[in-house]
Amino acid sequence: MKLGLPKGSLQESTLKLFRKAGYHISVSGRSYYPVFDDPEIDSMLIRAQEMAGYVEKGILDCGLTGRDWVLEQGADVREVAELLYAKEGLNPVRWVVAVPVDSKIKTIRDLGGKRIATELVSFTKRYLRAKGIRADVEFSWGATEIKPPYLADAIVELTETGASLRANNLRIVETILESSTRFIANKKAWANRWKRQKIENIVMLLKGALAAEEKVGLKMNVPEKSLKLILGLLPAMHSPTISTLTDKGWFDLDVVIDEKTVRDIIPKLKKAGATGIVEYQLNKVIP
Amino acid sequence: MKLGLPKGSLQESTLKLFRKAGYHISVSGRSYYPVFDDPEIDSMLIRAQEMAGYVEKGILDCGLTGRDWVLEQGADVREVAELLYAKEGLNPVRWVVAVPVDSKIKTIRDLGGKRIATELVSFTKRYLRAKGIRADVEFSWGATEIKPPYLADAIVELTETGASLRANNLRIVETILESSTRFIANKKAWANRWKRQKIENIVMLLKGALAAEEKVGLKMNVPEKSLKLILGLLPAMHSPTISTLTDKGWFDLDVVIDEKTVRDIIPKLKKAGATGIVEYQLNKVIP
Amino acid sequence: MKLGLPKGSLQESTLKLFRKAGYHISVSGRSYYPVFDDPEIDSMLIRAQEMAGYVEKGILDCGLTGRDWVLEQGADVREVAELLYAKEGLNPVRWVVAVPVDSKIKTIRDLGGKRIATELVSFTKRYLRAKGIRADVEFSWGATEIKPPYLADAIVELTETGASLRANNLRIVETILESSTRFIANKKAWANRWKRQKIENIVMLLKGALAAEEKVGLKMNVPEKSLKLILGLLPAMHSPTISTLTDKGWFDLDVVIDEKTVRDIIPKLKKAGATGIVEYQLNKVIP
Amino acid sequence: MKLGLPKGSLQESTLKLFRKAGYHISVSGRSYYPVFDDPEIDSMLIRAQEMAGYVEKGILDCGLTGRDWVLEQGADVREVAELLYAKEGLNPVRWVVAVPVDSKIKTIRDLGGKRIATELVSFTKRYLRAKGIRADVEFSWGATEIKPPYLADAIVELTETGASLRANNLRIVETILESSTRFIANKKAWANRWKRQKIENIVMLLKGALAAEEKVGLKMNVPEKSLKLILGLLPAMHSPTISTLTDKGWFDLDVVIDEKTVRDIIPKLKKAGATGIVEYQLNKVIP
Amino acid sequence: MKLGLPKGSLQESTLKLFRKAGYHISVSGRSYYPVFDDPEIDSMLIRAQEMAGYVEKGILDCGLTGRDWVLEQGADVREVAELLYAKEGLNPVRWVVAVPVDSKIKTIRDLGGKRIATELVSFTKRYLRAKGIRADVEFSWGATEIKPPYLADAIVELTETGASLRANNLRIVETILESSTRFIANKKAWANRWKRQKIENIVMLLKGALAAEEKVGLKMNVPEKSLKLILGLLPAMHSPTISTLTDKGWFDLDVVIDEKTVRDIIPKLKKAGATGIVEYQLNKVIP
Amino acid sequence: MKLGLPKGSLQESTLKLFRKAGYHISVSGRSYYPVFDDPEIDSMLIRAQEMAGYVEKGILDCGLTGRDWVLEQGADVREVAELLYAKEGLNPVRWVVAVPVDSKIKTIRDLGGKRIATELVSFTKRYLRAKGIRADVEFSWGATEIKPPYLADAIVELTETGASLRANNLRIVETILESSTRFIANKKAWANRWKRQKIENIVMLLKGALAAEEKVGLKMNVPEKSLKLILGLLPAMHSPTISTLTDKGWFDLDVVIDEKTVRDIIPKLKKAGATGIVEYQLNKVIP
Repeated sequence: MKLGLPKGSLQESTLKLFRKAGYHISVSGRSYYPVFDDPEIDSMLIRAQEMAGYVEKGILDCGLTGRDWVLEQGADVREVAELLYAKEGLNPVRWVVAVPVDSKIKTIRDLGGKRIATELVSFTKRYLRAKGIRADVEFSWGATEIKPPYLADAIVELTETGASLRANNLRIVETILESSTRFIANKKAWANRWKRQKIENIVMLLKGALAAEEKVGLKMNVPEKSLKLILGLLPAMHSPTISTLTDKGWFDLDVVIDEKTVRDIIPKLKKAGATGIVEYQLNKVIP
Repeated sequence: MKLGLPKGSLQESTLKLFRKAGYHISVSGRSYYPVFDDPEIDSMLIRAQEMAGYVEKGILDCGLTGRDWVLEQGADVREVAELLYAKEGLNPVRWVVAVPVDSKIKTIRDLGGKRIATELVSFTKRYLRAKGIRADVEFSWGATEIKPPYLADAIVELTETGASLRANNLRIVETILESSTRFIANKKAWANRWKRQKIENIVMLLKGALAAEEKVGLKMNVPEKSLKLILGLLPAMHSPTISTLTDKGWFDLDVVIDEKTVRDIIPKLKKAGATGIVEYQLNKVIP
Repeated sequence: MKLGLPKGSLQESTLKLFRKAGYHISVSGRSYYPVFDDPEIDSMLIRAQEMAGYVEKGILDCGLTGRDWVLEQGADVREVAELLYAKEGLNPVRWVVAVPVDSKIKTIRDLGGKRIATELVSFTKRYLRAKGIRADVEFSWGATEIKPPYLADAIVELTETGASLRANNLRIVETILESSTRFIANKKAWANRWKRQKIENIVMLLKGALAAEEKVGLKMNVPEKSLKLILGLLPAMHSPTISTLTDKGWFDLDVVIDEKTVRDIIPKLKKAGATGIVEYQLNKVIP
Repeated sequence: MKLGLPKGSLQESTLKLFRKAGYHISVSGRSYYPVFDDPEIDSMLIRAQEMAGYVEKGILDCGLTGRDWVLEQGADVREVAELLYAKEGLNPVRWVVAVPVDSKIKTIRDLGGKRIATELVSFTKRYLRAKGIRADVEFSWGATEIKPPYLADAIVELTETGASLRANNLRIVETILESSTRFIANKKAWANRWKRQKIENIVMLLKGALAAEEKVGLKMNVPEKSLKLILGLLPAMHSPTISTLTDKGWFDLDVVIDEKTVRDIIPKLKKAGATGIVEYQLNKVIP
Repeated sequence: MKLGLPKGSLQESTLKLFRKAGYHISVSGRSYYPVFDDPEIDSMLIRAQEMAGYVEKGILDCGLTGRDWVLEQGADVREVAELLYAKEGLNPVRWVVAVPVDSKIKTIRDLGGKRIATELVSFTKRYLRAKGIRADVEFSWGATEIKPPYLADAIVELTETGASLRANNLRIVETILESSTRFIANKKAWANRWKRQKIENIVMLLKGALAAEEKVGLKMNVPEKSLKLILGLLPAMHSPTISTLTDKGWFDLDVVIDEKTVRDIIPKLKKAGATGIVEYQLNKVIP
Repeated sequence: MKLGLPKGSLQESTLKLFRKAGYHISVSGRSYYPVFDDPEIDSMLIRAQEMAGYVEKGILDCGLTGRDWVLEQGADVREVAELLYAKEGLNPVRWVVAVPVDSKIKTIRDLGGKRIATELVSFTKRYLRAKGIRADVEFSWGATEIKPPYLADAIVELTETGASLRANNLRIVETILESSTRFIANKKAWANRWKRQKIENIVMLLKGALAAEEKVGLKMNVPEKSLKLILGLLPAMHSPTISTLTDKGWFDLDVVIDEKTVRDIIPKLKKAGATGIVEYQLNKVIP
């Protein structure tokens, strides 16, 4: 099966995710062909911008890219799963219309007749056309945010926190697209029973690895009298595992919980009588 | 609650410790205000030398700094906990009087009338005064260890291993202060029920994270006949967890022990009949 | 006990392995004497090429080096264990005869009368002699792969993937030696009861640490009706640990399995009814 | 006057050239507006690909870019000067058609009906059309040289030495464009007396700085009898400067010559009787 | 002679200046004693803050430090020369009173009763006292600019461009001290004939090296008829050197001029008839 | 002509020297074939240790290497010139016999029957044999200085400053070889008129470039009355160049002098009446 991996800003976090999912991948120097230890997978590094097109044509069976570039290419592919990870954080990114802080453009209605610079030309054109706005949308080779006001009246640009826009004295007019990473598949490949099964298994493992980043395991010793109280405190994925201790009248509880809640729960567990509380890390969590 | 974090040599290890304790902290570039994902905590990076003063005045509710700087500032604060971690190792540091290897100064009695360079001016003055020694203690802006013999007769300087002193041909005359990191609180903040509870919970998690660095989890399969012998070998924090195996006559033991003892215990356990011995890492250990 | 560690390309991975095995080792700057926190071990960094000779002579009691250099030196030592790790991967390396792509040399028979450059002079000479081939084997100071065709007719060179050979337009004629890392001991030291025990314990821990790189722990919740089916899917080292859940009719299974198989087994377990599947990492695995 | 400087691979060498020409330029961090110490110049960093279009439209009065991108954009601008410098060397670069080493494509005639990937889409299309060849020319986002054979049949790509093409097993079919850096001006700006004078002065200094990279100063002592012979050897820009030495019968010659010829001329001068030959570096040379 | 060099931010530029002046200096690793190839100079790296005190006491004969720290220490030393260089630029630095942008403090009169944080405690106290203002001046260990408004009401801080103040939302109230680097000498050393001569020679070379950074040499060929016109254009330090060319009726002019004026003068010289204009760099310029 | 350049520690300084001599050399990545802009030179990077052998055999016509390796290989080559440059300084290096500080070996006479580790096996053997000393000289793969006392009784090792020996607690017993870089030629190549001329020209340029590192040019304005006094102060290579100034009664002197003497001469010149003293750098100086 031919799998496309996004070259560039998502590359490292994607390879890390696959590795956590259980694949051993070697990337030799500047090679564009990461080698998986699964002989059924032939992988290739391809720019996220070009991924969907190659998947649509069947040159690749499946791949990872952003929803933005799927839409930009207008590619007819099967979206198998949303995977919430990005270069740095885990949040979706946004494509916004931005203008200079002191521009007269207040809403996207005001874009009529203006010059707009963006890397996302096709989507932007379709979006504006659908709203009945006629503007001059030009392809930008990068550094888009420095173009207004001289080189463009407005831009359509990707932003995570808005910091780069503010640094260039730009104001957001409207968000026109939210995007996150997607696992996409060629439609014929998806129809093929073996390939579909293969893709679904990979996606299950990738999701398990992602989920594990937000979970931890927690074990503790609990005296019989506190057992009920403590069970009530624990928001386990499933009900917790209970083992006996050699010390009579004591139990061992083992649960998986949200890493974020640990710092609030531990003081409560301690107060409720738990001792020997131990937190450990997880590689994968599959519900 | 306003929390002071030590800027400088302790900064990275302090942030790492808080992260391990369960806080997600973002430090943007050169900002002095790390942002916690807990909205109840407002943190600020402050030089360890100045921390105790600001905590005493209530500008901060609590903070982390060395015992040395609490004493140097003569600050009236509540010492909540000792946290044994430092820039590199986990050991306390020492402030020592040091002189050139061939100096005639043999004991601190010989410091009378001499010039002493140090960053710890107030404490050194008080210490010598208490011993009835009159010397000229001057503030040093750094690089103190290269000052003797031309620029000073003796120095009072921080040392972990003594290596830097030896490299500058200095001999230690006396240790005048041992210091380690402390979690300190403003006395009014400590009297406030909510703040005190908050501080105690943070300290519990920090201690749990520190303790985990020296512990590991150990699991093994034990045949019934060896159970007693093996239980005798295990210095668990609490008594071990025992589960049954599907294989009749076998048990699974799960304990938390000192990482340092593992390499000695494993060969003994193996000899005593344990099989399938597995060691795993821990994030937090709270007794 | 005097222990030799391989300096150079294997150095970092060897120290890492010992650390994982439970030893705290400090290497100060460019020192050749890593300090273990075990006072019974005196270690020294020595080039892998020279290790076997020093162990044979008893200057070292034991050490780690490649089988290739044991053979090159023709050293009479006790091979205690094979440890499958290398600079990068976990695979054995190969010494091959290589010639320019367009050379007339097709088999090693054609080497008669030719100039061969290599770092492995003795072994190569013995190998050729045994086959009745007379060639001029010259020692090469490095950069061997660029020598043909002007400076040599053929080379005998180490290769992991063949990439460097291809980059220099060389073709592999024959593999003459496969090699991997070995823990070797001096024969007298091995006969000494205390030293042998010490060596065996170290090797047990090193193997445990190596094994852990290929194993993970897996826990899951299993409904009573699926228990048998799922037990059948699990290739545990020993039979799995079974605990009860607070939820009646459910069990918790805990096993150690090959990390490589996880990605295949998880989909099957899920299908068979397991939920709450959790994978966690291991530091050591001792069977 | 608005001046465009090429962002990217030419950026550093361009700024260095302007500095050598006598301008003090500060570039603060990631700013796109280098500040000149000449208040009459407003500069801006712009991708070379986009420069000519902005100069044509008069958004910039003048700028530096490659001839390739002037042609790609089909921009109607005044070409003021050719400046022979590039990212690394001083040679023009070439755009070539390249195909896999074992491709059946031998001449560009064979491109009919094939897929061609390139960053230089417009020029390539025009070039092929003019030759009567119909091919499918697709825009490539980069890493063009790894696309054949799967993602494209041929590429049109920039090359200085051909090394990157060879490394990807590609063969050059034909050079379709040679290019070097040009100083271009907007036609209206050029018609403006003040701007034209300003541009001509800048170009004079840039050329003086470039010329100095290929020239050196050479001084020597010459005895009267050899004077004529030596003057005959010196290919000075103008006739050489002659001064008297305190030593009667000796002269001092001072000339500016091509740095490349120095290594050939010095042995001849020496042979002809010159002594005390001294070579010194030049910052600017203006004929 | 004992010479103090400023350790820290000025260190590299000071060593570079001495090297350009003609001294070969070796600084081995972290040593505080740079070794000059002049056996009459014993140098030592000392913090600029402490320099003047040690020079005053005669522990050093002379040294380089800022005027600010001479005044802060109230040291009675001989100021031999001002040397206009700094960490980055060649301009003096300023110590300013700064407050939060929205502070009610408008002039230094408003500082009465306020808390002021600064590294320059003594000078600030004296300055305010002289103006009849009573404020609480506290020593700051660094990161002073982030203290207002919580940790201080105002600061007295060093600034070159004001950028760091603006980045922390601070407003400059008043400049209280301008400072630049000074070469200072102990008064007794200055009275010593040999030491004074030595110091004056060093200062002459340092100034010659500094001056050379702003000058270049310019040579050109001039026809007799233009000689007067061109001499009128040249603002030489002294009158220019004139040599004859082998070409009758032509002269060679050689002058030293400000590097900044070159870009304006070259076009004028060219227009006036000069040819073969050549600019070359200088190491030292001593008037 | 085939020219060998030393790969490794001398590589960068050798290429720099050739560049200063007037050759443009490009080294692409990890290539072993630096390309000269002189088509008559084919260069190759070869380990200094192996150079002399290849030159002797005529595989190379000439090359640069140390005298030590010429002697070690016992190569019959023509030594054309000594070039005093090294990795860092300009001084010759020494091969010394070194032993542990507390060794009983006091003179090389005491080496009889001892084990000596060295990279310079052949030369050492010959040297000892000539003195009638029988010792066991073993080849060392590097890190020789850490071998005594366990792995060797003494070593023969290269040293520049002795620092590395002291750091390993070794004492120098005797220097057995002083070495510096040599330009060597194959004897047949040397007999060839064209090759010999080529080599001599290259050597002249290399020497000119080396000499320039220790010389500077000095110009000054001198009033007629001081001329004689000042000429007496100047140790020019040849007598100085004198030109007239437009100012009557003044002369311009231009000389080349040792850079080391400049800092002493400038104050004297100034005192003697010279003004407008200017120092400038030189690329090559050929006497």
